Amino acid sequence: MREVAIIGIGETKFGELWERSLRDLGIEAGFKAMGDAGISGNEIDAIFLGNMSAGQLIDQEHIAPLIADYSGMAEKNIPAIRIEAASASGGLALSQGYMAVASGVHDIVVVGGAEKMTDVGDDAANEIMAKTADQEWEAVFGATLGSLYAMMARRHMNEFGTTKEQLASVAVKNHLNGSMNPHAQFRSPIKLEAVLRAPMVASPLGTFDFAPLSDGAAAVILAPLDIAHKYSDTPIKILSCGQAGDYMALHDRKSITRMDATVVAGKKAFKYAGIQPKDVNLAEVHDCTTISEIMAIEDLGFFKKGQGGKVTEDGSTALNSKISINTSGGLKAKGYPVGASGVSQAIEAVTQLRGEAGQRQVSKAEIALLHNIGGTGSSAIVHLLGRC
Amino acid sequence: MREVAIIGIGETKFGELWERSLRDLGIEAGFKAMGDAGISGNEIDAIFLGNMSAGQLIDQEHIAPLIADYSGMAEKNIPAIRIEAASASGGLALSQGYMAVASGVHDIVVVGGAEKMTDVGDDAANEIMAKTADQEWEAVFGATLGSLYAMMARRHMNEFGTTKEQLASVAVKNHLNGSMNPHAQFRSPIKLEAVLRAPMVASPLGTFDFAPLSDGAAAVILAPLDIAHKYSDTPIKILSCGQAGDYMALHDRKSITRMDATVVAGKKAFKYAGIQPKDVNLAEVHDCTTISEIMAIEDLGFFKKGQGGKVTEDGSTALNSKISINTSGGLKAKGYPVGASGVSQAIEAVTQLRGEAGQRQVSKAEIALLHNIGGTGSSAIVHLLGRC
Repeated sequence: MREVAIIGIGETKFGELWERSLRDLGIEAGFKAMGDAGISGNEIDAIFLGNMSAGQLIDQEHIAPLIADYSGMAEKNIPAIRIEAASASGGLALSQGYMAVASGVHDIVVVGGAEKMTDVGDDAANEIMAKTADQEWEAVFGATLGSLYAMMARRHMNEFGTTKEQLASVAVKNHLNGSMNPHAQFRSPIKLEAVLRAPMVASPLGTFDFAPLSDGAAAVILAPLDIAHKYSDTPIKILSCGQAGDYMALHDRKSITRMDATVVAGKKAFKYAGIQPKDVNLAEVHDCTTISEIMAIEDLGFFKKGQGGKVTEDGSTALNSKISINTSGGLKAKGYPVGASGVSQAIEAVTQLRGEAGQRQVSKAEIALLHNIGGTGSSAIVHLLGRC
Repeated sequence: MREVAIIGIGETKFGELWERSLRDLGIEAGFKAMGDAGISGNEIDAIFLGNMSAGQLIDQEHIAPLIADYSGMAEKNIPAIRIEAASASGGLALSQGYMAVASGVHDIVVVGGAEKMTDVGDDAANEIMAKTADQEWEAVFGATLGSLYAMMARRHMNEFGTTKEQLASVAVKNHLNGSMNPHAQFRSPIKLEAVLRAPMVASPLGTFDFAPLSDGAAAVILAPLDIAHKYSDTPIKILSCGQAGDYMALHDRKSITRMDATVVAGKKAFKYAGIQPKDVNLAEVHDCTTISEIMAIEDLGFFKKGQGGKVTEDGSTALNSKISINTSGGLKAKGYPVGASGVSQAIEAVTQLRGEAGQRQVSKAEIALLHNIGGTGSSAIVHLLGRC
């Protein structure tokens, strides 16, 4: 297996982009990434595209060849592959692209993620999101993803004494980070009181405990490490990747204050890379809700189980603290174009590892972790990235 | 890259299976394949699942971990990946699984395909199918996949003198083959007159020019060739795989009597395997319509462009003729659970190459080709399989 590097990154603005179509967003992200790598379409061997639900959200299935076509790659009959694992679609697209280059099947691939969430309205979007949990045992009875995460939060509070203030401190931190990210959807810091007083969605989680449902797209270009310097002065190496699954329905899991898919995916990624959680300087973890980030930083081994709330509250996960978590603003403030989120996380990691993160630059940025989950955690994927 | 073999196969009945759920079908196919390989769930490293539109058809996204879960693999946190390329989803799942084993990322994987088409009714199913063409430029104006294929047929008739009788002869042949396949949805031979007199769907294509929309699932188990004999007396080798894309909308293509994605995917597969079309004994080609099969056997290089209708009519593609095309009955008679079709094709090829096809056995079955396309041909994937 060859070593693989990320040689180009590009993404659109995230937000409620009424005037943009999914194909339009996909093309913009791809072209920006190709521009960043200084590469032409003629050099691309394949496209891997992460997307959750275009069939329901914009009435278009089969979107990988669509975006390849509108990016000018149909002329050369470039193969395009869509990967779906709900909100982990982008992360899985990255891993499949990584495997394709590492194995020598392809040399240069584009890994994209794109989602257009806002065309159908909030209620329909939430209903579609709920279909990523177990439809027959959860969604059909009215469970939304928000209510399922609320159960995890309530149980975490019960088992470990996690407080609403600790949950809120995740949002405060991520909005602060987002305020320093020109690409973030939300660029205003928020106060703890504002999070606590926000309208309740599913107790104990209020409006500000949730990432927004955004439109947007992100893309990275992968190449074998041995030719990466031809395209980039600062190629970033993919050190490893680990994926795992879990029971779909919460009621089948051994615990709902832990995501076993995250635990196992993380262990695999650390093992393959030969490093430990303490070696990681920054991590983009899947903070679709505040409790998600708290569980993630525990399950990835950065902190002991039950301590996630406390360490967030005391600042241990803030920028340039013990470990910098979600320096981009996370899904919470950078925005959450669902199936694109895993690719967007890679873009933040590359930006940090290149030393190009400006005001939010992590001072010692050598190893970064990406953590993307699907649904309520029945898919998880972890990548480790490092400077060459 | 390691050599890879198929060591187990399994599929459900195809048809209008009102009493069965998608998860139920997926599990049955997977368990049958594992039973065929004599393998336990503990030996499975990953699941690759092809599916077109479960989000719209059964209100369930994220179905790869769902089927992994209900197959008992959540306990071990087995990674599960859904691949979507419309009707080529199964073929692409096979290629991704193949890449995973060939590269050494995984040792033993299950590749499944599953689709539940009938729960939403025919009109909705056709509307969903149309979303695999270009929604903004084709489907939104009322074009169904059937009408788009009808345009290809009409043009093929105009350019090459292909007749309605020649189109019909594809259906007659495939129903005859299906009559010899205990796993086929339609087991009655049909007469040419019946095809010609069938109600018109989109001129020149009538009811019997189309494959049915079926429920069903199929699964194969892949392993490195060097350990394949541990599990199977007759492992079947995957010789190569080629994938290609094309413009989404028909109006953008250079020709609509040729599918360039098929041409390019086929050439890649033949090149990688170091063989030629004349070396192939049998092929399962994507006959979602009769014109599709005619174009496929031309585009794959088995016959000259424009001759597909004529050679079908004169019997050159019948069982044990020059080349045996769609011995299973094809999508037309075996059935068409859309995203599962590519995996189902692999099952027929393995059955033939093992010499277990009974009444429809190809006498010299050494090399088989699988051809799966998505939408109206903007994705195509070709696999070549051979006896060890």
